Amino acid sequence: MSLPEKQWAQVVEKKGGPPVYKEIPVPKPAADEILVKIRYTGVCHTDLHAMNGDWPLPLKMPLVGGHEGAGIVVAKGDLVKEFEIGDQAGIKWINGTDLSCEFCQQAEEPLCPNAQLSGYTVDGTFQQYAIGKAAIASKIPEGVALDAVAPILCAGLTVYKGLKESGARPGQTVAIVGAGGGLGSLAQQYAKAMGLRVVAIDGGDEKKAMCDSLGAEAYIDFFTSKDVVADVKAATPEGLGAHAVLLLAVSEKPFQQATEYVRSRGTIVAIGLPQGAFLKASVFNTVVRMINIKGSYVGTRQDAVEAIDFFARGLIKAPYKIAPLKDLPKIFEMMQQGKIAGRYVLDVPQ
Amino acid sequence: MSLPEKQWAQVVEKKGGPPVYKEIPVPKPAADEILVKIRYTGVCHTDLHAMNGDWPLPLKMPLVGGHEGAGIVVAKGDLVKEFEIGDQAGIKWINGTDLSCEFCQQAEEPLCPNAQLSGYTVDGTFQQYAIGKAAIASKIPEGVALDAVAPILCAGLTVYKGLKESGARPGQTVAIVGAGGGLGSLAQQYAKAMGLRVVAIDGGDEKKAMCDSLGAEAYIDFFTSKDVVADVKAATPEGLGAHAVLLLAVSEKPFQQATEYVRSRGTIVAIGLPQGAFLKASVFNTVVRMINIKGSYVGTRQDAVEAIDFFARGLIKAPYKIAPLKDLPKIFEMMQQGKIAGRYVLDVPQ
Amino acid sequence: MSLPEKQWAQVVEKKGGPPVYKEIPVPKPAADEILVKIRYTGVCHTDLHAMNGDWPLPLKMPLVGGHEGAGIVVAKGDLVKEFEIGDQAGIKWINGTDLSCEFCQQAEEPLCPNAQLSGYTVDGTFQQYAIGKAAIASKIPEGVALDAVAPILCAGLTVYKGLKESGARPGQTVAIVGAGGGLGSLAQQYAKAMGLRVVAIDGGDEKKAMCDSLGAEAYIDFFTSKDVVADVKAATPEGLGAHAVLLLAVSEKPFQQATEYVRSRGTIVAIGLPQGAFLKASVFNTVVRMINIKGSYVGTRQDAVEAIDFFARGLIKAPYKIAPLKDLPKIFEMMQQGKIAGRYVLDVPQ
Amino acid sequence: MSLPEKQWAQVVEKKGGPPVYKEIPVPKPAADEILVKIRYTGVCHTDLHAMNGDWPLPLKMPLVGGHEGAGIVVAKGDLVKEFEIGDQAGIKWINGTDLSCEFCQQAEEPLCPNAQLSGYTVDGTFQQYAIGKAAIASKIPEGVALDAVAPILCAGLTVYKGLKESGARPGQTVAIVGAGGGLGSLAQQYAKAMGLRVVAIDGGDEKKAMCDSLGAEAYIDFFTSKDVVADVKAATPEGLGAHAVLLLAVSEKPFQQATEYVRSRGTIVAIGLPQGAFLKASVFNTVVRMINIKGSYVGTRQDAVEAIDFFARGLIKAPYKIAPLKDLPKIFEMMQQGKIAGRYVLDVPQ
Repeated sequence: MSLPEKQWAQVVEKKGGPPVYKEIPVPKPAADEILVKIRYTGVCHTDLHAMNGDWPLPLKMPLVGGHEGAGIVVAKGDLVKEFEIGDQAGIKWINGTDLSCEFCQQAEEPLCPNAQLSGYTVDGTFQQYAIGKAAIASKIPEGVALDAVAPILCAGLTVYKGLKESGARPGQTVAIVGAGGGLGSLAQQYAKAMGLRVVAIDGGDEKKAMCDSLGAEAYIDFFTSKDVVADVKAATPEGLGAHAVLLLAVSEKPFQQATEYVRSRGTIVAIGLPQGAFLKASVFNTVVRMINIKGSYVGTRQDAVEAIDFFARGLIKAPYKIAPLKDLPKIFEMMQQGKIAGRYVLDVPQ
Repeated sequence: MSLPEKQWAQVVEKKGGPPVYKEIPVPKPAADEILVKIRYTGVCHTDLHAMNGDWPLPLKMPLVGGHEGAGIVVAKGDLVKEFEIGDQAGIKWINGTDLSCEFCQQAEEPLCPNAQLSGYTVDGTFQQYAIGKAAIASKIPEGVALDAVAPILCAGLTVYKGLKESGARPGQTVAIVGAGGGLGSLAQQYAKAMGLRVVAIDGGDEKKAMCDSLGAEAYIDFFTSKDVVADVKAATPEGLGAHAVLLLAVSEKPFQQATEYVRSRGTIVAIGLPQGAFLKASVFNTVVRMINIKGSYVGTRQDAVEAIDFFARGLIKAPYKIAPLKDLPKIFEMMQQGKIAGRYVLDVPQ
Repeated sequence: MSLPEKQWAQVVEKKGGPPVYKEIPVPKPAADEILVKIRYTGVCHTDLHAMNGDWPLPLKMPLVGGHEGAGIVVAKGDLVKEFEIGDQAGIKWINGTDLSCEFCQQAEEPLCPNAQLSGYTVDGTFQQYAIGKAAIASKIPEGVALDAVAPILCAGLTVYKGLKESGARPGQTVAIVGAGGGLGSLAQQYAKAMGLRVVAIDGGDEKKAMCDSLGAEAYIDFFTSKDVVADVKAATPEGLGAHAVLLLAVSEKPFQQATEYVRSRGTIVAIGLPQGAFLKASVFNTVVRMINIKGSYVGTRQDAVEAIDFFARGLIKAPYKIAPLKDLPKIFEMMQQGKIAGRYVLDVPQ
Repeated sequence: MSLPEKQWAQVVEKKGGPPVYKEIPVPKPAADEILVKIRYTGVCHTDLHAMNGDWPLPLKMPLVGGHEGAGIVVAKGDLVKEFEIGDQAGIKWINGTDLSCEFCQQAEEPLCPNAQLSGYTVDGTFQQYAIGKAAIASKIPEGVALDAVAPILCAGLTVYKGLKESGARPGQTVAIVGAGGGLGSLAQQYAKAMGLRVVAIDGGDEKKAMCDSLGAEAYIDFFTSKDVVADVKAATPEGLGAHAVLLLAVSEKPFQQATEYVRSRGTIVAIGLPQGAFLKASVFNTVVRMINIKGSYVGTRQDAVEAIDFFARGLIKAPYKIAPLKDLPKIFEMMQQGKIAGRYVLDVPQ
């Protein structure tokens, strides 16, 4: 198979952007890498943070963003045994790790100090041909649609991992803050597939309708509730509170409420990385009720296998809209203005 | 055995105290209770909080405080099979629970919503004869000295439980904040008996000498260290930080430092209940490094069995001073002035 | 409420039976006991073992058998706070425990050396009025039908506990040996409610139809399969074997097969107590593949709460036939002849 | 650094041996491999099994055996970042794995279906220059003696892993069957370093003396004990049995005894691979006491880091004798005749 020398990509040329749609060289995979011809790639709020260099991580510049890319393996290095040419593959936020550090040795790759991050420290998937470490890229089983699976590679994985980290067992109740958003609707579906019961927390009737349709046992509207803590507790077995709480976007008030309506011995899982945000909790309440507060960050290779497997079995439907790769700047604008309801998946020209 | 009708006790007659040393009736055990002739009882900072009603719990008044009482069973209710008359027994902070709620059913008695608390919601051990629920009181093996074991019933139990909750495995490193104090010296000894390595954090040369003598692998002096975070990390394997942190008295700065020097995927355990205190942590750091923040509260019946067993095997030495029961007010005064180095154990008149 | 002095019961008067339907006194609850007016009580194979004294446990004689009894609390001892008169309650195989031994302290009541067993060491539920320890008896929520819930109290609980013990996580595959029987159909439904995928193993087309209707992903027929091990493996992800195996009636050949088709690092859970049976496994296979073999025995109080909760939520349907209490001897005969397909629930005269 | 083209090695030229001491080519490392100049290499019973091809694994032939090799990295492939030339390194039984299969993804490398086994499926360490995958070879910290650490790479790792798998917590009791042998003495020291209490089981006064000196709390002599089960139980807390049992060489009688003296809810860990051996356990006992039977196989990369770390901290002393590499055939003979007391470490000529 002969590969082109040039390709189209969305390139952020200076911190703050915007991305520029232009031709750049097609990269060559190293011995332990695959080259994936991207078919679809999701757009995540993280891509905006990356463009702005919001986080204390080394930002590659110029940068091709994107970390929810699904496509076909078109080339691979000499040592690669994980993939064959023609296989479906996914490139995730964690692009590569050293596989040998203390964390990798314990299957905690996202904590690898040498991790390469797609669309932040290395180029990502907003291009026709993207590179990933073969040992870290995800296999996408044959027959799984590449557009629909794209958001699973980051959004789905992240909420699935958060639910695993919560320690909630089948039959227990998880409260999901932000249940009616894009991450939330995925979280609800994973929760249900895992045998969990959901108390959905969000604002407004449109969100309520969505949560009801996904099978939430209760919906607490923080626009209209007079006492969110009391209402969440009332919706849980014996009124003792939720066994776990998934905070899909941590900010101070929802976090403090969560420490009150979580069940004693329960777990609050923080997901999402608002810039400069803090967790704050009463020591008395945390100690006397033995509350557990945890951060959960994307997921491991195995977590991704599982998240994709739930999707492949038809248990997860992620609503999304398709737009062409060249429209990325517009989508970023809409995102910045808070005008995006669902998730966008970019169609990459072939 | 005929029991007296009257006994000496330290009675707090109004919120704020002070305790008054006076004669009161000897209580009678109910069907599921034991009556313990107290020989020794430790004085804990919590007793001061109790006298002042500092916590959002129902405060009995007038109140006999005390919750580290060791003595001999002298009477028992008809249903009691756990103890025989003459057995050594210990009465702890958790005096009784319903044994049937969701938490008791899962061996989490300290979380029982119907828990009775010695020296707070029911009378405690600053008296000659104290009551405890037979199923909750601790057996103290024959041959174990009642004065020395008294502080194990609360202080020892609490730090042992905190170490268990930390999830640190033998060979891993635990940083102990406040390592040179009373709780800290117990924590260091339990940690060592559990195969853990200790990085001691405290202030001053006297504390250093004590930590050195207990086998701490490093001592970080927060009076003189220019960078506590860097120094703790440097003292841990690969410089990656402590696998767990035990915070023996939570306040904001040490807590935030702990979130920085704990290893990724590590656990910070908060112990101790300073009034009105808060935990505060950066979301970014907590999420991206998957840090776990937990409260740990006293311990279960089984935790107490284990904490006492380590003590009975001679692995834990708790330095203490003995004073007569009647001196309690003086000890409270010294405590309020921060003048107590070790732990006081009260000798109860026979 | 005035209680009668006499009641009808099925009484085994000598080891080996048969049970005799006769009038006996109504028992009086002790201070920590409830008296339950039994409405329905399931018949379990264990009741036959009890009548024959098959197990190395102290057999009460004369004996009222039965340990799946559901009814209404009609009297209670002075110390009982768990139940009110009129509450629905269930009496299980574990009738009472000491709540204070090492095992009870760790919420492992079924392992209590002082456990009393309904219908074996104390009288059970084949009578109009049965006794249970209040702290051990199960609450049956209002609105839950007493006939349908009866089999959950032992059969449902046992398979639910076995699935918990298997350690299988949502999305993983559990092979159920005997999937088409009474226990098996319950196990399949609990597995599904817990997010597990089922490979059903049993014999014959009738069993296949049942397993298909319950949503098993594959059915392996040990009557017709040429290679059960290969067929089970082929039905699991990547052909690597089942993450867990539930053996609902342990005998040697199915057990050895299970050690071959269980996934490496997987768990085989043995349930059921055939007299004199043995587990046998190759050391090489067990070690090199790090297989875990476990026994699972009924369930704890909390397990029962959970098993009943799944049922109350409508996720578990246990097919059963109703017969009057007086027909117990006939049912035992049919059971001995292997002629019972589903489960019998006895209607106790009011 | 220029490497020789030829080297001395012990080569098994046909199944059954014996090894022949001869010159063979020095191998070249692939891109992801290191070449280790072996200084010392332990001799394990497994090497004898390998020479005889006792196990159902693909046997390389001709074969250089050995899998406890410690030396210095003298060459490495282009992709290797884990080691620098001159580093101390250890080559273990698991020589390489694919790092990408389901098991490797979960940090269970020993279960990798593509694992290469030193001295069985690939050449091992009975040669001057041996190959290992860089990601799997163990780092040996500077200052750690290469002769003394050699047996840790297999024997030490295996018993340490077995103790981890036992789930025994600090303060609990582990019974070690074969405590007085080579593996046993290592197991006792690791157990102690992990805060565990040891009941040693072995035969004879010489073994007793050794176990006493290592701090075992009790020694049960199966030559003289009239009732091994009763004696082990008597040596454990409350007489309830050992929390865990480590079976260092599984055979049927000791295994069945273990199922009787293990505590209810306890774990029996099988280690060692006698040819054609079977585990056999009563179903009744296993189920009613909820016993857990597990196989444990060598250890992961991280387990090795930990096992070596305990050694490096001076907590583990493994007695061994040194012999020259050329004497391997003699050592095999002595081994076959059961004449070896401690462990032999071969000095490899420089």
